Amino acid sequence: MILVTGGTGFVGSALVRSLARTATPVRVVSLRDHAARLPNVEYASADLCELDVDSAVLDSVDTIIHLASTTIPSTSMADPAFDARSNIEMSLRLLEAARRRGIRNFLFASSGGTVYGDPVSVPVRESDPTEPRSPYGIVKLAVEKYVGLYSRIHGLHGISLRISNPYGYGQFFGAPIGVIARLLHHAFENTTFTVWGDGSVVRDYFHVDDLLRAFHITLADPGIRTGVYNVGAGRGTSLNELVALVERITSRPIKVRYEAAREVDVHTIWLDSTKFRSATGWKPSIALEDGVRSLWQELLQKPPTRSPAQRG
Amino acid sequence: MILVTGGTGFVGSALVRSLARTATPVRVVSLRDHAARLPNVEYASADLCELDVDSAVLDSVDTIIHLASTTIPSTSMADPAFDARSNIEMSLRLLEAARRRGIRNFLFASSGGTVYGDPVSVPVRESDPTEPRSPYGIVKLAVEKYVGLYSRIHGLHGISLRISNPYGYGQFFGAPIGVIARLLHHAFENTTFTVWGDGSVVRDYFHVDDLLRAFHITLADPGIRTGVYNVGAGRGTSLNELVALVERITSRPIKVRYEAAREVDVHTIWLDSTKFRSATGWKPSIALEDGVRSLWQELLQKPPTRSPAQRG
Repeated sequence: MILVTGGTGFVGSALVRSLARTATPVRVVSLRDHAARLPNVEYASADLCELDVDSAVLDSVDTIIHLASTTIPSTSMADPAFDARSNIEMSLRLLEAARRRGIRNFLFASSGGTVYGDPVSVPVRESDPTEPRSPYGIVKLAVEKYVGLYSRIHGLHGISLRISNPYGYGQFFGAPIGVIARLLHHAFENTTFTVWGDGSVVRDYFHVDDLLRAFHITLADPGIRTGVYNVGAGRGTSLNELVALVERITSRPIKVRYEAAREVDVHTIWLDSTKFRSATGWKPSIALEDGVRSLWQELLQKPPTRSPAQRG
Repeated sequence: MILVTGGTGFVGSALVRSLARTATPVRVVSLRDHAARLPNVEYASADLCELDVDSAVLDSVDTIIHLASTTIPSTSMADPAFDARSNIEMSLRLLEAARRRGIRNFLFASSGGTVYGDPVSVPVRESDPTEPRSPYGIVKLAVEKYVGLYSRIHGLHGISLRISNPYGYGQFFGAPIGVIARLLHHAFENTTFTVWGDGSVVRDYFHVDDLLRAFHITLADPGIRTGVYNVGAGRGTSLNELVALVERITSRPIKVRYEAAREVDVHTIWLDSTKFRSATGWKPSIALEDGVRSLWQELLQKPPTRSPAQRG
């Protein structure tokens, strides 16, 4: 049985759907209600910051996929103590539960875009310096270290994936993250898109289906060495390039408003995923232009029935 | 005014005495009572985990030296969540107070012996991988990152000293750390000394007076670049060598009992302090043999009136 935390978020819900399709026994635990339930998936509501080691949530679990976070980079900056307290508490309770209940596999969704801070060079590698620009990144890094510690000391098979910027249809319903979905949505609704800074910031975007394959490959191979792995496209795209790409694909001009850059934002980053590729054979298969085009088609065919939470 | 947290511990009380000698205005804040008060030093009792930004403890402060910790490596392993919660909360409250009250200088006592974990090579440098073997080291590392973040984003002048293993007279009264003081004390009392493992573990011991000079130099030079700096002797000594050294100096045989090695203990580490030396001119001046000999003389002349907290 795989326990998925954060299984109602963008990546989590896509992952749970894909696990259900392969008939993998999966239990989703989340603070939220589970309105949309999939067949063959168990759902549990619990505050993981208060998870008890004896909780039935952990019964029959042999693998934990830990995607949940109480913050995003900008909210972590607004309240670093809450960010640390909640996310570290939650992660340590899961790790401690894994240790005490003999749950061997622990897959942690870390953040390739924040743990490094401003890279010394790009593409960034796992061994490069980690100097986060946000409390969010510091806590992701600390949790990676706890996963490493429990692996070294307590025999956990712990893997931290430093994920870059996945995009996909599910982002139309989620938190105010996911710039590609937001751009397409602005094109769809003909509303103004806010850029923090001058649009020169560069990120590593890849399709969520490629990320799902990374999870599935990792789950299927118990021989992957414990440690941290970059998972991204390995290609940088600036925000301005992204705006131009969306304008080309949608044939609609995007109204852009430029605002002051934010402190939490790294300027330029993309990831070298060679280590993960060497360990698993994984590589991204969906080119950015193709992914964005198919996402636009999806949006035209199935407009979201509730609008995304947006900032600015 | 310099605010010293943890000013009643071994390093803290030595630092406060040395600051008082140079007539530097200093305030000691600690959970404990302040029975032994020095003239010209202010004392305040407060729980820093609940420090309010408006607290009078912070009045007139321009520099914070953050030495306090609620844990040592072994106790952090027993309760990682408490270790994280208390030490991160305390450190973030101090940093946030510094930001909001315009306190510019922040000197954090990090841990050269735990943030690296098992070094790839020795002497270890600041840019080497950091894979702690204890929750204590993970939290020290996270606090370093917060100090770095507040420096980059909020203009703090933050310095983290990754200190190796200081020894000195004050350890006879302190927590159950400080192997040199414990060895001398066992020689003095003719009691059995417990070694975790086979005695081959190697550490970087240096005299607390050399550490105090490192603090004073750092305080005196506002031009030192924000960042992390190793501070140690740059020389490794095994526990068995230390036992032999103490036997030679004291002319007394030490009774040793060997116990199983502890999970939290790194096997071999010593620090390359070249970065700190280049920045400040500091280098350790007291050879280990001389330091241990003078400490033994001190012990013979002024036997501690209360016995040290000891384990095993």
